[in-house]
Amino acid sequence: MLEELKRQVYEANMELPKRGLITYTWGNVSGIDRETGYFVIKPSGVDYDKLTPEDMVVMDLDGNKVEGSLRPSSDTPTHLELYKKYTDIGGIVHTHSPEATAWAQAGRDIPLYGTTHADYFYGPIPCARSLTPEEIDEAYETNTGRVIIETFEKRGINPVYTPGVLCTNHGPFTWGKDAAEAVHNAVVLEEVAKMATKTELINPDVKPAPDCIRDKHFFRKHGKNAYYGQ
Amino acid sequence: MLEELKRQVYEANMELPKRGLITYTWGNVSGIDRETGYFVIKPSGVDYDKLTPEDMVVMDLDGNKVEGSLRPSSDTPTHLELYKKYTDIGGIVHTHSPEATAWAQAGRDIPLYGTTHADYFYGPIPCARSLTPEEIDEAYETNTGRVIIETFEKRGINPVYTPGVLCTNHGPFTWGKDAAEAVHNAVVLEEVAKMATKTELINPDVKPAPDCIRDKHFFRKHGKNAYYGQ
Amino acid sequence: MLEELKRQVYEANMELPKRGLITYTWGNVSGIDRETGYFVIKPSGVDYDKLTPEDMVVMDLDGNKVEGSLRPSSDTPTHLELYKKYTDIGGIVHTHSPEATAWAQAGRDIPLYGTTHADYFYGPIPCARSLTPEEIDEAYETNTGRVIIETFEKRGINPVYTPGVLCTNHGPFTWGKDAAEAVHNAVVLEEVAKMATKTELINPDVKPAPDCIRDKHFFRKHGKNAYYGQ
Amino acid sequence: MLEELKRQVYEANMELPKRGLITYTWGNVSGIDRETGYFVIKPSGVDYDKLTPEDMVVMDLDGNKVEGSLRPSSDTPTHLELYKKYTDIGGIVHTHSPEATAWAQAGRDIPLYGTTHADYFYGPIPCARSLTPEEIDEAYETNTGRVIIETFEKRGINPVYTPGVLCTNHGPFTWGKDAAEAVHNAVVLEEVAKMATKTELINPDVKPAPDCIRDKHFFRKHGKNAYYGQ
Repeated sequence: MLEELKRQVYEANMELPKRGLITYTWGNVSGIDRETGYFVIKPSGVDYDKLTPEDMVVMDLDGNKVEGSLRPSSDTPTHLELYKKYTDIGGIVHTHSPEATAWAQAGRDIPLYGTTHADYFYGPIPCARSLTPEEIDEAYETNTGRVIIETFEKRGINPVYTPGVLCTNHGPFTWGKDAAEAVHNAVVLEEVAKMATKTELINPDVKPAPDCIRDKHFFRKHGKNAYYGQ
Repeated sequence: MLEELKRQVYEANMELPKRGLITYTWGNVSGIDRETGYFVIKPSGVDYDKLTPEDMVVMDLDGNKVEGSLRPSSDTPTHLELYKKYTDIGGIVHTHSPEATAWAQAGRDIPLYGTTHADYFYGPIPCARSLTPEEIDEAYETNTGRVIIETFEKRGINPVYTPGVLCTNHGPFTWGKDAAEAVHNAVVLEEVAKMATKTELINPDVKPAPDCIRDKHFFRKHGKNAYYGQ
Repeated sequence: MLEELKRQVYEANMELPKRGLITYTWGNVSGIDRETGYFVIKPSGVDYDKLTPEDMVVMDLDGNKVEGSLRPSSDTPTHLELYKKYTDIGGIVHTHSPEATAWAQAGRDIPLYGTTHADYFYGPIPCARSLTPEEIDEAYETNTGRVIIETFEKRGINPVYTPGVLCTNHGPFTWGKDAAEAVHNAVVLEEVAKMATKTELINPDVKPAPDCIRDKHFFRKHGKNAYYGQ
Repeated sequence: MLEELKRQVYEANMELPKRGLITYTWGNVSGIDRETGYFVIKPSGVDYDKLTPEDMVVMDLDGNKVEGSLRPSSDTPTHLELYKKYTDIGGIVHTHSPEATAWAQAGRDIPLYGTTHADYFYGPIPCARSLTPEEIDEAYETNTGRVIIETFEKRGINPVYTPGVLCTNHGPFTWGKDAAEAVHNAVVLEEVAKMATKTELINPDVKPAPDCIRDKHFFRKHGKNAYYGQ
């Protein structure tokens, strides 16, 4: 079932250690097939060098396992909430990549300091609040997804234009049109986080880039007037 | 004698350079066989690329060499103290990994800033005090072990829940149920130390993560209600 | 057409990922043939591992494509402005290398703190101002080149002695006598940027190196009295 | 002539890129044969991947080339001064390794913050003053050596116990009993410099390690009571 999607999700997962985003098993990638409403996700706590495409777990949007002999990632309910709410996205990634996680632990949005950021994220990368003890007790992973959605709604951020978030005290989630693009955005987020930290060290009084730079670069790569690439 | 344990300890030692924790010979891993009370440790000052399983030295808990043609690691008496006191642990690692060593040199506990930390360490990673001149003169390596134990006792820290320590002006020790898990915890400690340094750069006023986050993540991976992994 | 130049520019482009200056497709190298007035540049948004010498695009100095099936780099008009104005240079590089980009995002010149810098750049590496909204709307990439030129003219900097610049909120451009030297200077700029950031962390009150150090090292490697190398 | 020494010096030079201390040709290693009084040094500005043992240049202590078709490193007169004064040393290294160079650019000694440092350097790693314009004009590289010697003499530092120095606005020199040990010390210096920078970030009020720690660790590895290694 969904062999092609399983292969894509497997390969997207394998990009994480290759790109240096992952220590041990600290990450997971999923991808969804919108026709069946099933999504495919990495199993929980399996070493990347033992992972095979067949190990990928197939889930439905009610949280039931449809296929697979292994338990899905413990973060599966977070992915599920995002897939249900954001019907335009096809892939999701969670990592503990160190530069982005440091911003999440610091509890701060990553300001848009330059074109590297603006080429992919149309504004600051928001930092979602910590969960309350009640939210943690009730359904930690589900509520992690809900707090992400709350953040984007309250602040009026378009999740397609800003395909990533930091969860306070935890780490980043990114997404995209498919699993590969979600990983691509996770790599970009890590680079952007690293540059932002250094930018503030070099100039503690630095201001975000002007909106005209943000607009120029974002729309050079996205939308109907894009002219980057082939 | 203890060929399987020697092989495990050898492989755990070889993980240190592979994981980037080691420059030259700056580290050592040991593992214990609780039935015989013998432990196996890396020989002192031997290059990792010349090391073989047969080079591992077998010691008893009185500090006598039981088998091996080489001298054991100069830190052997520290390992010995920890094995005698902490009967639940099966492997110990010492490194000078740079991120953790910087915290040790700074003389500070690593605060629990997020879930990466809480997945493995149930609270701050404590920084044990420097030894006095008398303690150094009398028995430096033995007293290093005793000061670690003193730190955990005085502060009421469970060494199974917090499997690592920083020794002021020196560097980290970690441990685990066996040599492989001790190395795993050394890798995690280095990542956690790196993230904590960056977290404080990004937000100098940052506070530790709330206890509910610590409890959720630690017990998601440990204890009878754990649900991470297969 | 210009097969040898295409090969040189291709190889110079391939140095960027090899030297760690590039994430994904974030960079481009060009080289010019001053006899024909044609320059060769990387195509836009093509993965480095799929790039071939035949993919290189040939352009004239009026901005017309002379040969090639792919679209040239979106930064082509910036290269063109620099080639028209600086007739002594033969190659240009743009990257988003993180250390130099952090200085660009911080909006600061990189001070000349030592001989590593002075061996290649005869003074601070200037940071060109951000473009105005009007300049962005009118011709973003062309005006990026013009603002670089404006910076060097207003400040009386010789672009052959200081073969690189930072564009505020964006990133670095470097150049040289050919594409290979331009890449060499991009690598040096990244190292110099990294060292400068660390230098200020270690000593926030640090002053630039004295002029006599700058002169000694720059002219040890450049000009008629140079005595470095064979 | 001196084929074995040439091979040793060649191999020591090749360690520099392998250990990540070198960008392009920014470094040089030499070794001396005290019987003949000849020393062997890397040629100036030759790429490491084209270097062969036969390229090594043989010099005498009056600065005359004894053998070799290439020009010696431009830093040869600095090596020469150190060999003449410090008759106990057999190898010298100069690099622009970034962590140590940042301290040199900052114009600060590296404080002894822990045992990693004390295992190799018996006290702070001194930062020698910048040269005056007159010293630069007269004989830059020779006077670089003389200012290093002046630093050790004025401050009463034993160059065998502290086998390295930072030259303000420039970078590090290290030495040892032979070329291989000099490179070993260059690697250690880079690690120690990196840790010291991080240590001060984590605790801006940190104090150097107590003398008893310094003495214990230095003499655990050096002198007649050493007990580290085989």
